[in-house]
Amino acid sequence: MPTITGVTIDDVRFPTSLSADGSDAMNKDADYSAVYVTLTTDTAAPDGSPLTGHGLTFTIGRGNDIVAVAARQQAETLVGRDLEEVLGDLGGVYRGLVSDSQIRWLGPEKGVVHLSLAAVMNAVWDLAGRHAGKPVWRLLADMTPEQLVDVADLRYLSDALTREEAIALLERQQDGKAARIAELEATGYPCYTTSAGWLGYSDEKLRRLCQEAVDEGYSHIKLKVGVDLEHDKVRCQIARDVIGPDRKLMIDANQVWDVDQAIEWVQALAEFDLTWIEEPTSPDDVLGHAAIRKAVAPIGVATGEHGHNRVMFKQFLQAGAIDYCQVDTGRLGSLNEIVAVLLLAAKFGVPVCPHAGGVGLCEMVQHVSMLDFVAISGTHEGRVAEYVDHLHEHFTDPCIVKDAGYVPPTAPGYSTQMHPSSVADYRFPEGAYWRERHADAVVAARTAAG
Amino acid sequence: MPTITGVTIDDVRFPTSLSADGSDAMNKDADYSAVYVTLTTDTAAPDGSPLTGHGLTFTIGRGNDIVAVAARQQAETLVGRDLEEVLGDLGGVYRGLVSDSQIRWLGPEKGVVHLSLAAVMNAVWDLAGRHAGKPVWRLLADMTPEQLVDVADLRYLSDALTREEAIALLERQQDGKAARIAELEATGYPCYTTSAGWLGYSDEKLRRLCQEAVDEGYSHIKLKVGVDLEHDKVRCQIARDVIGPDRKLMIDANQVWDVDQAIEWVQALAEFDLTWIEEPTSPDDVLGHAAIRKAVAPIGVATGEHGHNRVMFKQFLQAGAIDYCQVDTGRLGSLNEIVAVLLLAAKFGVPVCPHAGGVGLCEMVQHVSMLDFVAISGTHEGRVAEYVDHLHEHFTDPCIVKDAGYVPPTAPGYSTQMHPSSVADYRFPEGAYWRERHADAVVAARTAAG
Repeated sequence: MPTITGVTIDDVRFPTSLSADGSDAMNKDADYSAVYVTLTTDTAAPDGSPLTGHGLTFTIGRGNDIVAVAARQQAETLVGRDLEEVLGDLGGVYRGLVSDSQIRWLGPEKGVVHLSLAAVMNAVWDLAGRHAGKPVWRLLADMTPEQLVDVADLRYLSDALTREEAIALLERQQDGKAARIAELEATGYPCYTTSAGWLGYSDEKLRRLCQEAVDEGYSHIKLKVGVDLEHDKVRCQIARDVIGPDRKLMIDANQVWDVDQAIEWVQALAEFDLTWIEEPTSPDDVLGHAAIRKAVAPIGVATGEHGHNRVMFKQFLQAGAIDYCQVDTGRLGSLNEIVAVLLLAAKFGVPVCPHAGGVGLCEMVQHVSMLDFVAISGTHEGRVAEYVDHLHEHFTDPCIVKDAGYVPPTAPGYSTQMHPSSVADYRFPEGAYWRERHADAVVAARTAAG
Repeated sequence: MPTITGVTIDDVRFPTSLSADGSDAMNKDADYSAVYVTLTTDTAAPDGSPLTGHGLTFTIGRGNDIVAVAARQQAETLVGRDLEEVLGDLGGVYRGLVSDSQIRWLGPEKGVVHLSLAAVMNAVWDLAGRHAGKPVWRLLADMTPEQLVDVADLRYLSDALTREEAIALLERQQDGKAARIAELEATGYPCYTTSAGWLGYSDEKLRRLCQEAVDEGYSHIKLKVGVDLEHDKVRCQIARDVIGPDRKLMIDANQVWDVDQAIEWVQALAEFDLTWIEEPTSPDDVLGHAAIRKAVAPIGVATGEHGHNRVMFKQFLQAGAIDYCQVDTGRLGSLNEIVAVLLLAAKFGVPVCPHAGGVGLCEMVQHVSMLDFVAISGTHEGRVAEYVDHLHEHFTDPCIVKDAGYVPPTAPGYSTQMHPSSVADYRFPEGAYWRERHADAVVAARTAAG
């Protein structure tokens, strides 16, 4: 019988802090990193190549090794297991990992052990897609309502969404699936860009990148804010000048404010006609987000990239705390938990606009948004997935954005495989890039010491 | 100048699963464990002994090593630092650790990196107490209101509690401090016992231990519930029979229920006159706890041992979701975050009944409850700290319980130092105990293989 034969875990880090890519009010020196999980088997994919599964979670540098230790412990429980049994019960595999009581204690279902769970289960889902010869969005969209609900983690959600409601909700979308898939193939899934607005960029670079975004057809642009109100006004003015009155402008504070401060700051920027304020305060503060939303309306409130599990999303929705639900594919417990959140958001009528950027998040969120469109919410009205233009060159099946829309991936899997050469070069600390940089630093230190 | 010269991190695990100590509806095979942090200096304590600091966080087995990796990274940033500078700004030291943006990404302020932060800062507080020649509860209680507020982490709390309110609240308690300290010294701080009610114990053992608790003078007893309703009725009946109608009976479900299920189950046990239901559902579910509390009143709702940071406690209090606030000294970011929660709870008038048990938690919570009584809430009415009678023999200054009350610790520090021999024997996997057990397992496997 075909078996999962092995796992490798790589701590991969890219030196993005050198160019201020990814800089915001909370995170000034992010080195975009991934814990990269590879599952191997003793069998072949439908195309005859060796069947493997690749998954990752995203971190911003130090501590990536901590997540790697956790991922190894979780992934090793899969080694030696019957492949058909694993792929035939993806809900059960997830539940087995998430309910290991000793590991659960370290969260539960949050922080390092949930990031690592995401990496491992993302690899399992990639394996499932490759085994079926389908991209993951399509694998999921082709499931029956019962099958899709069976992979979803609905624990702790029944006061907001029962299994029966979830199935009924999915059944209502069965009819239009084919037409929506055709629409996706024709026009892609709408996205917005954050590439212009990092806080470490100069005003000139901001202006130039906003213009480039307009030229590339984007209708939504997002800026980082939250360090200096007067400078935020200048930056919003530059963006608004370039994009004109009709395109949408969003801002993102990356959790730097207390609740009352968030309200004051956002109100002071309201004149720039903002679509949403993202992460105005602690990602744990459901009631705080609800208070902010009430005070800054009609500016919307968006959060979720640090929403650590489905229970938090349930509450954001129950409390009327968010206008946009930003699930993250590296932080939630892979598609098992993401499907649960998509179902909740559909029930509450809140649009899902996944968080992306980082390493490999764009590659994954396109699958999430397409699944949402085809099988769950049935619409992309008011929805845009995030897109950030960096680090895609490290992936074997990078996402493709055309006319401000993600083009549906067609290759089997979750688009999560990295080039072996990228992994080899950027493994920390032993990859060629880091060894060389370490050698340079030693030389510099010696030179400085005279 | 005196300096922090080094740190050691030990992964210490006790084989508690062998005796079902610590078994509950979620955690059936806990091996009580600690990540144990030792800070060394090049100076001496007031009594002339080498000045060291000892701290820990508590886990239940596998994954203790993951927390140890994180603790090492955080603790190493303290090595080489000027001791007086560190001890003169304990708020700043905490804020420096908690705001390392790359490590923060892995939480933020939750899960593994927050457990490890607790272990490290607990060691720093122990060091501070030893340096001052005072037990930590007394070190904190002797601070001025401004000094105490300066060590507290009030970030994200200002919509519920401002710095000015916190200072005013503390000033109101200044006068009675001496009398309350005298009261503590005379009668101790009231506690309850969970030692009787682990789920893996037989009914006869439950009955015997309840009787022992009564004989020892306890007025409160807690049982684990949540696997089998009919058996829970039997267990509650046994406990009520033994303790009589006047003593308090609490139950603890360790997060196993969804919200509606919690309500039904607790209502079905209401006839046993329960004081509180603890952890009825996901520890993240503020709104769920609020719904349960409304439905099961007058039975109280208690939670907090998995309350991952002060923002969660703020919301539990704002939402009227809890009757008892169970802070945990291994999960919150040490006394810096605990003081913030004590201040919040005092403002909202909710009693703090700290979670304990595990490894070393009883040793720490006595300091927390005494600080709360002397300087913050000013009362122990309606409050009981948890006490579980195991593993105290591994500590050099174990907590002492007399007539169902914690006796105020008098030795300098946080009562967190373990015997070097305990650390040596139970270090995992290289300690003598685990080496021997591994050898036994190898022999057993060989024998079984014939």
